[in-house]
Amino acid sequence: MSTIDVNADLGEGFGVWTLGDDDALLGVITSANVACGFHAGDPSTMRRVCAGAVENGVAIGAQVSYRDLAGFGRRFVDVAPGELTDDVLYQLAALDGIARAGGGRVRYLKPHGALYNAVVTHEAQAKALVEAVTAYDRELPVLGLPGSVFLRKAEAAGLRTVAEGFADRGYTPEGTLVPRRSPGALVHDPRVVAERAVRMAAEGVVVAVDGTAVDVAVDSICVHGDTPGAVELARGVRTALEAAGLEISAFVA
Amino acid sequence: MSTIDVNADLGEGFGVWTLGDDDALLGVITSANVACGFHAGDPSTMRRVCAGAVENGVAIGAQVSYRDLAGFGRRFVDVAPGELTDDVLYQLAALDGIARAGGGRVRYLKPHGALYNAVVTHEAQAKALVEAVTAYDRELPVLGLPGSVFLRKAEAAGLRTVAEGFADRGYTPEGTLVPRRSPGALVHDPRVVAERAVRMAAEGVVVAVDGTAVDVAVDSICVHGDTPGAVELARGVRTALEAAGLEISAFVA
Amino acid sequence: MSTIDVNADLGEGFGVWTLGDDDALLGVITSANVACGFHAGDPSTMRRVCAGAVENGVAIGAQVSYRDLAGFGRRFVDVAPGELTDDVLYQLAALDGIARAGGGRVRYLKPHGALYNAVVTHEAQAKALVEAVTAYDRELPVLGLPGSVFLRKAEAAGLRTVAEGFADRGYTPEGTLVPRRSPGALVHDPRVVAERAVRMAAEGVVVAVDGTAVDVAVDSICVHGDTPGAVELARGVRTALEAAGLEISAFVA
Amino acid sequence: MSTIDVNADLGEGFGVWTLGDDDALLGVITSANVACGFHAGDPSTMRRVCAGAVENGVAIGAQVSYRDLAGFGRRFVDVAPGELTDDVLYQLAALDGIARAGGGRVRYLKPHGALYNAVVTHEAQAKALVEAVTAYDRELPVLGLPGSVFLRKAEAAGLRTVAEGFADRGYTPEGTLVPRRSPGALVHDPRVVAERAVRMAAEGVVVAVDGTAVDVAVDSICVHGDTPGAVELARGVRTALEAAGLEISAFVA
Repeated sequence: MSTIDVNADLGEGFGVWTLGDDDALLGVITSANVACGFHAGDPSTMRRVCAGAVENGVAIGAQVSYRDLAGFGRRFVDVAPGELTDDVLYQLAALDGIARAGGGRVRYLKPHGALYNAVVTHEAQAKALVEAVTAYDRELPVLGLPGSVFLRKAEAAGLRTVAEGFADRGYTPEGTLVPRRSPGALVHDPRVVAERAVRMAAEGVVVAVDGTAVDVAVDSICVHGDTPGAVELARGVRTALEAAGLEISAFVA
Repeated sequence: MSTIDVNADLGEGFGVWTLGDDDALLGVITSANVACGFHAGDPSTMRRVCAGAVENGVAIGAQVSYRDLAGFGRRFVDVAPGELTDDVLYQLAALDGIARAGGGRVRYLKPHGALYNAVVTHEAQAKALVEAVTAYDRELPVLGLPGSVFLRKAEAAGLRTVAEGFADRGYTPEGTLVPRRSPGALVHDPRVVAERAVRMAAEGVVVAVDGTAVDVAVDSICVHGDTPGAVELARGVRTALEAAGLEISAFVA
Repeated sequence: MSTIDVNADLGEGFGVWTLGDDDALLGVITSANVACGFHAGDPSTMRRVCAGAVENGVAIGAQVSYRDLAGFGRRFVDVAPGELTDDVLYQLAALDGIARAGGGRVRYLKPHGALYNAVVTHEAQAKALVEAVTAYDRELPVLGLPGSVFLRKAEAAGLRTVAEGFADRGYTPEGTLVPRRSPGALVHDPRVVAERAVRMAAEGVVVAVDGTAVDVAVDSICVHGDTPGAVELARGVRTALEAAGLEISAFVA
Repeated sequence: MSTIDVNADLGEGFGVWTLGDDDALLGVITSANVACGFHAGDPSTMRRVCAGAVENGVAIGAQVSYRDLAGFGRRFVDVAPGELTDDVLYQLAALDGIARAGGGRVRYLKPHGALYNAVVTHEAQAKALVEAVTAYDRELPVLGLPGSVFLRKAEAAGLRTVAEGFADRGYTPEGTLVPRRSPGALVHDPRVVAERAVRMAAEGVVVAVDGTAVDVAVDSICVHGDTPGAVELARGVRTALEAAGLEISAFVA
């Protein structure tokens, strides 16, 4: 039987502010990308989310970011690679310590927001991310976009790479995501989203905006929890994956 | 032969800003209290200081603080104990991960500034600190003021406690520090400072502002590096301790 | 006909995070305490809220705070009075400039959270607040708790003071608020809240937790918008005040 | 007699951290670019520098920046133009209020660091800056690089523009600055720096790295104070300008 992971961003509040429904998502996903304090996520939120993940048997990942609370890490920052490595190492270590204090540990790393997008093509920042992981723990897998410079460099450095797909995002015939502001960027129909998730997971195929079937080998499906209806959409994806006979399981044991 | 540790605050810059002469101090001290990002200390500074400490055989300690860059952690913050525990855990883990990436590791914890002063008497915040250490690593010693609530609670929790003395600070007949704004708070004469350090280390005695000899059993002497002449003062303390036949050595092996 | 102001906290989001329903409240209140960036409130939020206030004819007030995003300004910070004055002046000026760019201007100042509570009794911090207002604009009224050191010092300095009442909070026989964790701290029944607002506004009287009628002369009623049902509660207060024949109007022309 | 302004960055410390010798520079320059809290500059530092500027008859300018304390505003941030406008408006207003409380006021705006460099070519961010100034005060001049998109857009919007030259930086034959990492980027010899300042100010000419004389019409010479010897260099520039018969005077009356 084929296996697929379902991941989502968690712990993206800060202080009194909350974002998304962490508790609901913990019942749907198998891997939680936990914010580490640089774009969101204060230490108490991190601790609470890690406890919830441990309780629900959900794998904890370090969702690392540019240092940008005001912009939620969604703005590219031209940080020097050496500083980026250190910033990521700091976040990774902080979350891992908090996770361990709660009986878990960080099992993988996934970059957030503008950093995620940057390292699809930005050689120096992609290398900086890989160096942070390598310096911290060579056994730690990294989660990212298939075909990205980041995953390529991570693989070259001997790290385990995990490719993810987005069931609610449009794809180009080249297998990249349709930019958010272009037509076809988002798929809204829950049934279509669920079907796309199943096809990605089962066949490694997604239908691009021009109708062609594109190969996208993915180990994980990314779902969201921060918009109205998002949790329902995520549940629909999981139910469809299960109904299709896939085993829903974290990519780390 | 009697043994004494010499500790100082390091890595207290932030970004372009620097404070004190870390490199010079690394040649004088045996334990470095490294700022963890909440009152000072960006990740790159932390990494550089940890590398220097490893190179010089200096023990790395987590100098944890209130979240207060603008106030350099020198202002009491009435943070809830649960949040303080999580804030401290975050800092401790971040530094430890950075230290480990550089071949070292965090060997002890020392609170900074207003937090240091608060936990001399503040029961709930002292307990919060102890809980952070306990949650992270029960083998980690804590460095603090002899007689403080913090050291008492740490000891009660089964943690190893390390008491420190201040050779350049005036003491009351009760063995507490003379408040900074009161007469006799600071000792300026380098020779007197060095003599006081020796007497504290060798005999566990300091002469209080009223002339009485007070018992202060200390395992470490705290020196400073952030004022003009401070490094010279620190060197003088170390030289005098060695001349008195004391072995200068970190309190952790 | 008697006149009463209704004030509420607005603009207390930060970046992607939101708090409360600013748009709904702008239709209920006459004075908006706008967060200035230190406990909440990024510049774009400030600008949007000011535009809304101008559009709705709502007076703009500077809701100044300790520098504490992580704690939402709810934690006492023992900041030196001189620095507090400067921090408040900075916030006040920033909001005023933003308000002016939108065709309005800051019409009063109200401290937030822990700072609000501190200056009920803290002489030096109360004085620091008064000095910030005096340095910026001696014509600017200040909004606070009747009987507080803050209002007393403001009055002594020649500032106009505006006293506010809390219809949903319990009062002691001495006319102070029942601490949040004590029994009777909060009044939940919307009808009772509305009645208390009317009695405060019309008669200057509130029934304390022990049943005695206490004099509380108030010029403004504070309502909240950040909890479920809060906007409804606020609307109920306004409707009741109007039904009682009070004119709802900002305390500044 | 020809007139020239001399400007420098001031108030670029934060909390306990200092940078440069503000007091010495106040005796050399005629315009102070005062940091506004986003890359440096806490409110108390801002207030102190403004007081010093008023005392020395030095014009106060708002040195606005990306929100980036950790990177000292030296990293490009891809902030959305609308948010940049609001961030700049916030900084400008905050400094102006502080300056006014000290008997001065903001007389011009100059972008800092990476923002300065970005708006040489970045259309949207340059426009965002211009909109902030326009929204705040259409009479406020802006200081920048001659030929930059920023100055061009400012002029088109009806703002007064002031062009500056850098006596200690190498120029290309096209009149742009040699990038910091290229050969010839910096001029170190104090005599040469002073001579270049005089020629720029008196003739509007600078000798480029290839030896050609390039036209650079400037109204202000920028000097620095944050490196060893910088204040001496600045003094040398001023002395040379005076010796050449130029009147040293702020570009705003």
